[in-house]
Amino acid sequence: MTERIVLAYSGGLDTSVAIGWIHDATGAEVIACAVDVGQGGEDLDVIRQRALDCGAVEAVVADARDEFATEYCMPALKANALYMDAYPVVSAISRPVITKHLVAAAKKYGASTVAHGCTGKGNDQVRFEVSITSLAPELKCIAPVRDLALTRDKAIDYAERKGLPIETTKHNPFSIDQNVWGRAVETGYLEDIWNEPTKDVYTYTDDPAFPPVADEVTISFAEGIPVRIDGRPVTPLQAIQEMNRRAGAQGVGRIDIVEDRLVGIKSREVYEAPGAMALIAAHQELERVTLEREQARFKRTVGDRWTELVYDGQWFSPLKKSLDTFIDDTQRYVNGDIRMILHGGRAQVTGRRSETGLYDFNLATYDEGDAFDQSHAKGFIEIYGLAAKQAAARDVANGNGEDLGEAAQQDDA
Amino acid sequence: MTERIVLAYSGGLDTSVAIGWIHDATGAEVIACAVDVGQGGEDLDVIRQRALDCGAVEAVVADARDEFATEYCMPALKANALYMDAYPVVSAISRPVITKHLVAAAKKYGASTVAHGCTGKGNDQVRFEVSITSLAPELKCIAPVRDLALTRDKAIDYAERKGLPIETTKHNPFSIDQNVWGRAVETGYLEDIWNEPTKDVYTYTDDPAFPPVADEVTISFAEGIPVRIDGRPVTPLQAIQEMNRRAGAQGVGRIDIVEDRLVGIKSREVYEAPGAMALIAAHQELERVTLEREQARFKRTVGDRWTELVYDGQWFSPLKKSLDTFIDDTQRYVNGDIRMILHGGRAQVTGRRSETGLYDFNLATYDEGDAFDQSHAKGFIEIYGLAAKQAAARDVANGNGEDLGEAAQQDDA
Amino acid sequence: MTERIVLAYSGGLDTSVAIGWIHDATGAEVIACAVDVGQGGEDLDVIRQRALDCGAVEAVVADARDEFATEYCMPALKANALYMDAYPVVSAISRPVITKHLVAAAKKYGASTVAHGCTGKGNDQVRFEVSITSLAPELKCIAPVRDLALTRDKAIDYAERKGLPIETTKHNPFSIDQNVWGRAVETGYLEDIWNEPTKDVYTYTDDPAFPPVADEVTISFAEGIPVRIDGRPVTPLQAIQEMNRRAGAQGVGRIDIVEDRLVGIKSREVYEAPGAMALIAAHQELERVTLEREQARFKRTVGDRWTELVYDGQWFSPLKKSLDTFIDDTQRYVNGDIRMILHGGRAQVTGRRSETGLYDFNLATYDEGDAFDQSHAKGFIEIYGLAAKQAAARDVANGNGEDLGEAAQQDDA
Amino acid sequence: MTERIVLAYSGGLDTSVAIGWIHDATGAEVIACAVDVGQGGEDLDVIRQRALDCGAVEAVVADARDEFATEYCMPALKANALYMDAYPVVSAISRPVITKHLVAAAKKYGASTVAHGCTGKGNDQVRFEVSITSLAPELKCIAPVRDLALTRDKAIDYAERKGLPIETTKHNPFSIDQNVWGRAVETGYLEDIWNEPTKDVYTYTDDPAFPPVADEVTISFAEGIPVRIDGRPVTPLQAIQEMNRRAGAQGVGRIDIVEDRLVGIKSREVYEAPGAMALIAAHQELERVTLEREQARFKRTVGDRWTELVYDGQWFSPLKKSLDTFIDDTQRYVNGDIRMILHGGRAQVTGRRSETGLYDFNLATYDEGDAFDQSHAKGFIEIYGLAAKQAAARDVANGNGEDLGEAAQQDDA
Repeated sequence: MTERIVLAYSGGLDTSVAIGWIHDATGAEVIACAVDVGQGGEDLDVIRQRALDCGAVEAVVADARDEFATEYCMPALKANALYMDAYPVVSAISRPVITKHLVAAAKKYGASTVAHGCTGKGNDQVRFEVSITSLAPELKCIAPVRDLALTRDKAIDYAERKGLPIETTKHNPFSIDQNVWGRAVETGYLEDIWNEPTKDVYTYTDDPAFPPVADEVTISFAEGIPVRIDGRPVTPLQAIQEMNRRAGAQGVGRIDIVEDRLVGIKSREVYEAPGAMALIAAHQELERVTLEREQARFKRTVGDRWTELVYDGQWFSPLKKSLDTFIDDTQRYVNGDIRMILHGGRAQVTGRRSETGLYDFNLATYDEGDAFDQSHAKGFIEIYGLAAKQAAARDVANGNGEDLGEAAQQDDA
Repeated sequence: MTERIVLAYSGGLDTSVAIGWIHDATGAEVIACAVDVGQGGEDLDVIRQRALDCGAVEAVVADARDEFATEYCMPALKANALYMDAYPVVSAISRPVITKHLVAAAKKYGASTVAHGCTGKGNDQVRFEVSITSLAPELKCIAPVRDLALTRDKAIDYAERKGLPIETTKHNPFSIDQNVWGRAVETGYLEDIWNEPTKDVYTYTDDPAFPPVADEVTISFAEGIPVRIDGRPVTPLQAIQEMNRRAGAQGVGRIDIVEDRLVGIKSREVYEAPGAMALIAAHQELERVTLEREQARFKRTVGDRWTELVYDGQWFSPLKKSLDTFIDDTQRYVNGDIRMILHGGRAQVTGRRSETGLYDFNLATYDEGDAFDQSHAKGFIEIYGLAAKQAAARDVANGNGEDLGEAAQQDDA
Repeated sequence: MTERIVLAYSGGLDTSVAIGWIHDATGAEVIACAVDVGQGGEDLDVIRQRALDCGAVEAVVADARDEFATEYCMPALKANALYMDAYPVVSAISRPVITKHLVAAAKKYGASTVAHGCTGKGNDQVRFEVSITSLAPELKCIAPVRDLALTRDKAIDYAERKGLPIETTKHNPFSIDQNVWGRAVETGYLEDIWNEPTKDVYTYTDDPAFPPVADEVTISFAEGIPVRIDGRPVTPLQAIQEMNRRAGAQGVGRIDIVEDRLVGIKSREVYEAPGAMALIAAHQELERVTLEREQARFKRTVGDRWTELVYDGQWFSPLKKSLDTFIDDTQRYVNGDIRMILHGGRAQVTGRRSETGLYDFNLATYDEGDAFDQSHAKGFIEIYGLAAKQAAARDVANGNGEDLGEAAQQDDA
Repeated sequence: MTERIVLAYSGGLDTSVAIGWIHDATGAEVIACAVDVGQGGEDLDVIRQRALDCGAVEAVVADARDEFATEYCMPALKANALYMDAYPVVSAISRPVITKHLVAAAKKYGASTVAHGCTGKGNDQVRFEVSITSLAPELKCIAPVRDLALTRDKAIDYAERKGLPIETTKHNPFSIDQNVWGRAVETGYLEDIWNEPTKDVYTYTDDPAFPPVADEVTISFAEGIPVRIDGRPVTPLQAIQEMNRRAGAQGVGRIDIVEDRLVGIKSREVYEAPGAMALIAAHQELERVTLEREQARFKRTVGDRWTELVYDGQWFSPLKKSLDTFIDDTQRYVNGDIRMILHGGRAQVTGRRSETGLYDFNLATYDEGDAFDQSHAKGFIEIYGLAAKQAAARDVANGNGEDLGEAAQQDDA
């Protein structure tokens, strides 16, 4: 029986050419698989037909937008996932959901191999291949650009020679990946890290320097998940879409960083993630109101590790799953409303309320008649500071006491 | 010999009254000690004279602004210290430097005790007292508000009765602490956490909604410390002051959070820290360019612990000092320029350059002729993903394989 | 209605006296509550009657041995809980289970307060009181020794004066706490930390210097819990008891350390925990076979934090519960057999087998025909080492290259 | 000019053959480099001559034992480095010191490449190659066994055919690596992880089941380093050697584990490290006496990361160096004496004393007249437990209170 290969298909030039290129190089039948994770662009049916027209023996398309929002974006939100304190793992979380559909197609059509369009120097090749073998250890992986020498020039030449129904003339100066959680842009111009991004880099966000009138929004969460916006019920997908639109109009969520790739090099990345950044800001503040202090402190460590793992392509790894159980347990009481002002690039929380919070006005207030018994403080401080005090006494005894010299010369004329 | 008590003196009503109040309650002579950490306000000489007029037997004043900027703010900058991802430990780092001057005064004047004006339910009492006994384990601590029942009403009554040279009529609705690194505001109105801060809360920052024209600034760092702004050499103090002015004019650095106090309660805090927040954003990006990945990842953990310790009053603790050695070692190559746009509440990095960075255009570029050998990727992925693959195979063998059900129902009509 | 106080009752002198002492000091009715966590000693009915004879209005006794083993010891085993790498949190895990019974009694009998026999300088007062208010925030706590000046001498005098049915003559030089998970001993003689423990300190273990013939044991685990010993099904309690007996006979599990107490001081502690230490050694090795590497690495951090929290009296805290969900998730595949030799103080694993392990002979073997494709190694190393290599090149370029001086002078005559 | 390759030379069959094998395959001149890290065996001059006899154009030998002990073993001791809580990174720390000598030889003799004898599935290939390119980014690496198909059978055939002066008949069933810090053994028999190690596996340790009379030893440390044994001054090398001898005679330090290799597989390893394990046990206890609690807790995390990095071949990485500064700072007060009993496989601390410790008899003692003021405890507990108490109250209010059901059914007949 002829070998079959499932190809992650975008509908663009490179993967359209890859259908024939893989077949020519391997003799295998190619099954195209396109997954909608909110990247916009062409209709799925158009993409499907193009795959067939380019030589695919089967073409599978899937609308995975709700699945992606619910099962991938929401865990990232609960983790407050910001790689290097900045990047909301936009591409990193889309790879595993796409992989799931590729593997499902491979099983359905009896394919032995999965192909993807990544180069050999980025993160996504690792994310795809580790995810694939984590879902189906028996599958093989191939990347035509990396493994079969499919360059851009060769792709244009091939498409023209074969008359493929795909445009080859337009040259996009940017390398782009986008989905409902955000948008990533790389480009030769940005590879000089002193250069400022030009305005044409952005499409999810308007210029924050010239914002429309300020937009006040109230987001309601249940167990860490947005469930209502301004009182209207929303699905996770709808929440992200609405916040993309409203925060995007205010220029919220533009990110420009130098980033550590998994493959050991640094690269310049520009991102737009208006909805993700606004939702994370809201979620973080609601956690400040609802999580107990030590739980919150350790959750930062857990969230950082979660984010590193997901960035590093280990979505399906055992540790990632165990971290998920920790995070989910912390979200039990992350319920309530966050009111924000969206304006000029800022998503600023201005109010919060929660039936399950730990903020207690009667303990916190400086008004008289509060519930906090200040007489306990003296004993607390004495014991709380005892270890540091003993260490200090040792320093003094060993001639390593803190130098007061500068302070001692204070003006007391 | 009469016992002596050094009092942390601000020049305001409460500590002016405390001079006599402490003397009346304990019989001790009171030595006032005022420390300038950039809080602005009255002249030190005026403050010094008032202390004497209120009954202090000695009055010590010290301009600690450079010391504070260099030895306290710069370590916080190197740590990217943001408590709960938000608060740049403004008050927390001022307590240890003030304490140093209090302890120096106590030693100089033979005092047995140090007094401070804090209440019994906040963080600062802990920070003062743990710092004091960490510098001088033999000193005792006293807080008139907490330990000697000195309420606001009693203070006003006392001042009027004794004719103290201090205004008692003006009622400030806010409780404020400020220094060159930032400004903290608490108030009864803000204790309802659903309330938005009113505009009169702010003084370090102008309204970001109505900014002046955008301000581009280039900050040059050497070993993690700002040394030039737009090419002009600056001291740490000057760097903070200039960035306070310029970033403040753009409304950068307004923070509004619910925060976990050391004493086990949550409180609402509003901060302004325009210089600190802009400098931290610049420093973080320069670290992204100059730190090796694993070093950067672990430094986050170290910085988080540093920040918790400092927030929790453990500035002089052994662990804090050991963490400093780690952080300092990471800063060796944090040299270079960061260009930022300050505008409308945003401090956005737009360019970075470093002679000691790890960004390598020739490795990062997607242009042809790059230095990255993509042929290594296949072997890397194979071994990098091996553990996850084996774990996945075990899941499959035990009937716990990832559910492909949803993906399998994809539209392939 | 008369106030009621539930007293944690051991049957010994101090708590027997405390019944009347508390009543005399407070006027409250005292309800004695004794909990069997495997400490051995007198029959519960005898203890119950003594409490009534000493003036308790009610006396509650509970056999909590199975509950303690299953719900407290087993989580400690899954966490490999060794405080400061040494102490299996013996007393620390018994306080929460005892507290549960105290609180249940308080609710049943309408008590407003719980009393315990701890002093004011140890960990257990904190563990009891934090646990009590974590289970029932409305309950108050009292400690007669700490709060009502009940010294040993006064207790003897009181017992003799009142004719209480309790022996007052025997003076035990040791302060002891024991349960089925182990035994803790403190004594004045051991407070000189240069002194070696005398032989009479130990009762759970025989002298390891003169062991009987070596004892081989095979422990079978299911999801991290021992379920069979040498093939015979066991409950958690039975597993601990049998291992206490067998490992104790070989002198396994004697521990002698200086330890950081929660209240900021260091103390000398001697422990015996033959069953716990043997089970932890077995469990750790089974985890080495069954946990994926990164999961295992992070679990150490989680286990350390779990252990600190439990030592510090935070058994019922939100973070402790969230950590439990992580740990439980890691135990899914911790199934299989561990064979150990118990002999002369050693519990040495000699074999392990697991149907759900990740050890793969075909990958690990150095024999020919293995499944590991060595050709991948070159690419892996190249990319894995890339970041360190770039950092090294920077060091060289900046004159900070590793000094080869010493190595360069090698003998090559 | 002819290319030159430096070969890591052991004097054994494989690397003796590799001299000619590399030359035949590449045309390069081979320079043999043998480094003594305390592995024992043949005289360095004999090894040097054999290399020349086998065709090396130069042969370099170096006695690196003191360098290894001081600069590699002592940092491991200060870190209490036990990979997976068990393995004292014996081989892992020898690779960087050997590499230093290989690189020094390469620079001296103008070689472009370094060759080593490792296979393609172990850790050591990674450690060698990452260390080499971290010291000299311009050097290339080659491994004849992995890259030039040099199998054992081919090596024997080659040696006999060429008449090399090396024994080819003796077949050692074990794969062994040893140095002064310990000894690692792998073997086909042990690859069945249910098999117990046979007695002939061990050479550094005698059988702990039949020990000589107990041996009491006192080790004195200065800043974490052993400086005297039983009062006699020792160098680090002498300390390790003496403890190897004395602890080895008692069977201390036998380790048998399944271990996570860097290359993603698990393997069975048997180690002997009598000196290392006894020194680490002593050092850990001295740290318990001298480190402040929070410093000690964080140092565990640092030590774990240090150990992982070193195991993973990152000795020369930036993070490893930054961790070293942290660890060194913690060792300032790790001074004093540890008394141990070595007997029958146990290295049991029995006493400790330190002039710079934090153990304070007057605080710790339960005798009357102690320095600890118990009246502070009540206030401490109240505030320390406040967060957990509020969280508990929330649980109760939300119907998630701790279930007292089981406890409530206690026997109170």
